[in-house]
Amino acid sequence: MSVSSPLYEGKAKKIYASEDADILIAHFKDDATAFNAQKRGSIKAKGEMNCTIASHLFRYLGQQGIPSHFIDQPAPNQMRIQAVEIIPLEVVVRNRAAGSLCRQTGLPLGMELSPPLVEFYLKNDELGDPLLTGDRLNLLNLASPDEIQTLRTLALEINQHLIEFFNHCAITLVDFKLEFGRDRQGTILLADEISPDTCRLWNQQETDPDRRIMDKDRFRQDLGDVETAYAQVMERVLKNQEFSKGTA
Amino acid sequence: MSVSSPLYEGKAKKIYASEDADILIAHFKDDATAFNAQKRGSIKAKGEMNCTIASHLFRYLGQQGIPSHFIDQPAPNQMRIQAVEIIPLEVVVRNRAAGSLCRQTGLPLGMELSPPLVEFYLKNDELGDPLLTGDRLNLLNLASPDEIQTLRTLALEINQHLIEFFNHCAITLVDFKLEFGRDRQGTILLADEISPDTCRLWNQQETDPDRRIMDKDRFRQDLGDVETAYAQVMERVLKNQEFSKGTA
Repeated sequence: MSVSSPLYEGKAKKIYASEDADILIAHFKDDATAFNAQKRGSIKAKGEMNCTIASHLFRYLGQQGIPSHFIDQPAPNQMRIQAVEIIPLEVVVRNRAAGSLCRQTGLPLGMELSPPLVEFYLKNDELGDPLLTGDRLNLLNLASPDEIQTLRTLALEINQHLIEFFNHCAITLVDFKLEFGRDRQGTILLADEISPDTCRLWNQQETDPDRRIMDKDRFRQDLGDVETAYAQVMERVLKNQEFSKGTA
Repeated sequence: MSVSSPLYEGKAKKIYASEDADILIAHFKDDATAFNAQKRGSIKAKGEMNCTIASHLFRYLGQQGIPSHFIDQPAPNQMRIQAVEIIPLEVVVRNRAAGSLCRQTGLPLGMELSPPLVEFYLKNDELGDPLLTGDRLNLLNLASPDEIQTLRTLALEINQHLIEFFNHCAITLVDFKLEFGRDRQGTILLADEISPDTCRLWNQQETDPDRRIMDKDRFRQDLGDVETAYAQVMERVLKNQEFSKGTA
């Protein structure tokens, strides 16, 4: 295998080996996909922006005691990460109703969900990343009952920290998707990324339902100004002094 | 409204008023639909067969203490029923993996589920009858937490009675869908129908995965001999002496 071959290529990232078997390099791509990759496109500089936003958020969460795979950001679109075995579950936290929750239940867009919903989806493109009930989650046995409890607890803790963080950026955290992995010791680490690709983020300074959207819904719904929205999220995240002490 | 106008027409039944406001007449149709009515057809004499099978099963379940909307069967394709307010939930009990459970999770067809799964789906054709997690079920508030517990308990009791009944017919009850309603006093009654339209039934005398199917999957999957299969179910249900005492 040549140095330039990724170990794995996903829809938004390529993962490369490093000299240390426990450390990988994630290269964030500009490619954008939606609706289970039925819609494809590209968002200029997305790789650098998402890598920067995710790095900042992983550092912040680390300071709050949330263990993640993040090590550092050696280049604008590159993240050094700990090698983990990804648990094939997408853990979605919802503070307000949006997206598939509205489509599938008829609940109104933006309805506050209190307490927030933690939902598990099977990470499987062929099957269309289906929603899992508690029973289906247990049946699939992709994580032990203790691990699932850990995922749920971590997801809710992460949610509280991110709500607070984004509030200081004048951004409402509507919902977001997390992935987790196990390190060599079996410890569960937050993995993948946290970015406008994986969160719904609404600008608190806008009231118009389309204009307030600062995330991949701009791409999904062809709302335009996708790069501008991502850049604005990055700018606010980096300027968030309250939560940036010692995180540079 | 003329006497001949149904109060309501569904995919498989027309519901007519009677002289008594608390009693309705369900006319079972030969129309068959599948995949949220994207596939349409007709199964000869289905109305009479399903009405007869469902009447027999409702009588049997009534003897086992399960309250239902069934009163009697005044004509082969007609059932007199108590008027109820239908709870817009489809309660699915699964003893073996099949159908959407396999498509959405990759679990192998026929895998035994022990304990059986009780799943709730939103009864809403426009939304595609989506699967509900426990949280979504609570959020939608279509039934109180006590009522949901009652639905779950009734569904599991009905399952045990039906497994036993169909075993005596040399038929394996793979899964089935139930609907429930509230009468004027708010009591929950089993409603709709129990038939080869709403159950997956496998002939225990066949081992071939296609030939053993005795239910609407023959229509869904274009397996042929749909009428023959329904007729065979009806014949075995009516001949099931052990469970037919005093139920004529």
